Amino acid sequence: MEGREEERSILGEENGGESKSEGEPVCSNGQDSMKEEEGDCIDVKTEKEEGEKGMEEWRQTKEVEVEAEVNMEVHQSAGLPMSIIQGSDLFGYVGIESVLDQMRRKTMKSGFEFNIMVVGQSGLGKSTLVNTLFKSKVSRKTCTPNYEEKISRTVKLHSVSHLIEEKGVKLKLTVVDTPGFGDKINNENCCEPIMKYINEQYEKYLREELHINRKRRIPDTRVHCCIYFLPPTGHRLRPIDVEFMKGLGNIVSIVPVIAKADTFTIEERLQFKERIKYDLAANGIRVYPQKEYDEDPEERILNDRIRESIPFAVVGTDKEHQVNGNKVLGRKTKWGIIEVENIAHCEFANLRDLLIRSHLQDLKDVTHNIHYETYRVRRLNESNMNFSGVGLPSWLQEKGTTDKSESDSHL
Amino acid sequence: MEGREEERSILGEENGGESKSEGEPVCSNGQDSMKEEEGDCIDVKTEKEEGEKGMEEWRQTKEVEVEAEVNMEVHQSAGLPMSIIQGSDLFGYVGIESVLDQMRRKTMKSGFEFNIMVVGQSGLGKSTLVNTLFKSKVSRKTCTPNYEEKISRTVKLHSVSHLIEEKGVKLKLTVVDTPGFGDKINNENCCEPIMKYINEQYEKYLREELHINRKRRIPDTRVHCCIYFLPPTGHRLRPIDVEFMKGLGNIVSIVPVIAKADTFTIEERLQFKERIKYDLAANGIRVYPQKEYDEDPEERILNDRIRESIPFAVVGTDKEHQVNGNKVLGRKTKWGIIEVENIAHCEFANLRDLLIRSHLQDLKDVTHNIHYETYRVRRLNESNMNFSGVGLPSWLQEKGTTDKSESDSHL
Repeated sequence: MEGREEERSILGEENGGESKSEGEPVCSNGQDSMKEEEGDCIDVKTEKEEGEKGMEEWRQTKEVEVEAEVNMEVHQSAGLPMSIIQGSDLFGYVGIESVLDQMRRKTMKSGFEFNIMVVGQSGLGKSTLVNTLFKSKVSRKTCTPNYEEKISRTVKLHSVSHLIEEKGVKLKLTVVDTPGFGDKINNENCCEPIMKYINEQYEKYLREELHINRKRRIPDTRVHCCIYFLPPTGHRLRPIDVEFMKGLGNIVSIVPVIAKADTFTIEERLQFKERIKYDLAANGIRVYPQKEYDEDPEERILNDRIRESIPFAVVGTDKEHQVNGNKVLGRKTKWGIIEVENIAHCEFANLRDLLIRSHLQDLKDVTHNIHYETYRVRRLNESNMNFSGVGLPSWLQEKGTTDKSESDSHL
Repeated sequence: MEGREEERSILGEENGGESKSEGEPVCSNGQDSMKEEEGDCIDVKTEKEEGEKGMEEWRQTKEVEVEAEVNMEVHQSAGLPMSIIQGSDLFGYVGIESVLDQMRRKTMKSGFEFNIMVVGQSGLGKSTLVNTLFKSKVSRKTCTPNYEEKISRTVKLHSVSHLIEEKGVKLKLTVVDTPGFGDKINNENCCEPIMKYINEQYEKYLREELHINRKRRIPDTRVHCCIYFLPPTGHRLRPIDVEFMKGLGNIVSIVPVIAKADTFTIEERLQFKERIKYDLAANGIRVYPQKEYDEDPEERILNDRIRESIPFAVVGTDKEHQVNGNKVLGRKTKWGIIEVENIAHCEFANLRDLLIRSHLQDLKDVTHNIHYETYRVRRLNESNMNFSGVGLPSWLQEKGTTDKSESDSHL
């Protein structure tokens, strides 16, 4: 068994405090995430036999030979070996998986937040689409202002929050609308208020996080997803589309959609999608899900499929129709009913699955782990915040064991 | 519908940036957690009728009358009304609950960490109990040192990590042992190295959190639970027990257990438990689950039951015996078999349920939200870290909209 466990003596007077008392706490664990460790473990499965040999001592301590074979595998992590105990190695049921239910129950109790932003010129059905996504009136159509108002209007952000409860799960949904985007004669500076809003939410979160007495749960107003509506022109990306997605693709997760896709024939839709895809790539525009954030090969395969079908050509509606005796959401025309949720008709269902049913949590994670972290690093660097100013903790200073280590107290 | 949604216009040139450009981002959402909001909503359910009236405009937009009744309830949060949309209000299935599966899948992939510390004099079966809890040899008995070693030995911390996988869920378990605690002639300063270790882990986490370029997932070595072993003396709390639990109860979640409870008769055990409970209360010792951290009445009822039966009188073993044809973990004596997991015999199962099956995630949450936050507040206060030094973000400074607001830029 020796050496098969990740094990080290930690501090204590006997060992002398020499290498530990400088405010750099000692830990015998590997520094990497478990996932990386798991990856490593695959390589060492051939050491199984050796592992079993090492387990003999362990078996001897048992009075009755247990049924389950104890297979321990060594597993390197940051240079330290750590044993893996598989389910079959356990001499009984532990109940580790119950943590999943505990987390589930906590999430059911607390609910969760999701903030979505819609960007695109007026008349593309932004509100209708969001209402179709969430099967309720979460976004109101902006009443068309009279001509004079329209002239003076610039991009003006507008947010609405709803608490949606479905099967006991509570979602606080905030929809941020951007009326006025792309509607003026001169659309310079159209992106500015949007970029400012997104950054303001990061700033707000950062300040809450740095606050000494902070809230137990920082209210999250950060934009987790920005749906960008492309008009169904049949042409290509317009300069305003390129400017927006290029400028904001690095600070927020953008999901471009082709709005009102019912204006296309099958061929036109295919052609337009291909052109848009080409233009996105040619302009170096990064849309969600970004390839570089795929966490493993499994996710890569899944996301590759999504990346291939982006931008989704969608149709939205809040009207129901009878089709073969079933009620379906659709748009009735003289030549037939466009069933919004029928994947043979349009790609609304793909968009809904991405945003809600498969990637909602990932959108939140990418926002927190990538976009927010990028903002945080930039802000802390530009403000010259130097956290070495935190110095040594008083409980360490008091102890008089620090004489020697004061010189290397800056981490 | 007007006024029934939480809604506000946000920034934009038209509205003037006056009240928003001072680096205090604007958010139209309530500041409180959803839970509080939910609490509020109960009070306003009587406004249902009025809510339905407000929904008329919405219904009119539908071609086909939808079956589901749309009941919207207004709901106050930090003074802002926010509508609640219940499942039955939705005109179709959204799939909000799928976020639970998304989180589940993410946890399955990444695994989770749990760090447990065992404290108590030698010979109380600390390692055996932890091994019984996790049905594997996660903790090794400390070999008894020879007499001379024993004399010189002081409390010396020792940590072992294992990756346990059960039903596809990966737990990185770290067991921190404290050999030498309470074993000397003079046990002054026994608590010091333990307190130091616990604080070092908080310090380590804090520094990782403050780091500019931080890890996506901060390695968590903080002690989530400290099992304190009381010897089955039949008397009361000893001075060392009081000193330890009083001193450390504020920085870590302590779960006291009565070790080797098989030495008691039924009456003795009851009596001893009552005395210990009395002494805990009399000395103002706070053990987990602490009453003041109960999050709602439901949790209070559940935890009250646990608090009543603490300290658990436990027996540990790694030996299996045949009882009525079944294999059970137990200790065979000349007068019968003590079945460790039989709640009629001892309270091991209660301890296991608390630590693993019902409160594992809560132990982690209390460690993070209470103990770590307390440490963080103390450290930041004593180091005079002033985060107003973060100043204004450059993206705000560049914009020239800040002239007016510079005076109130300190949040």
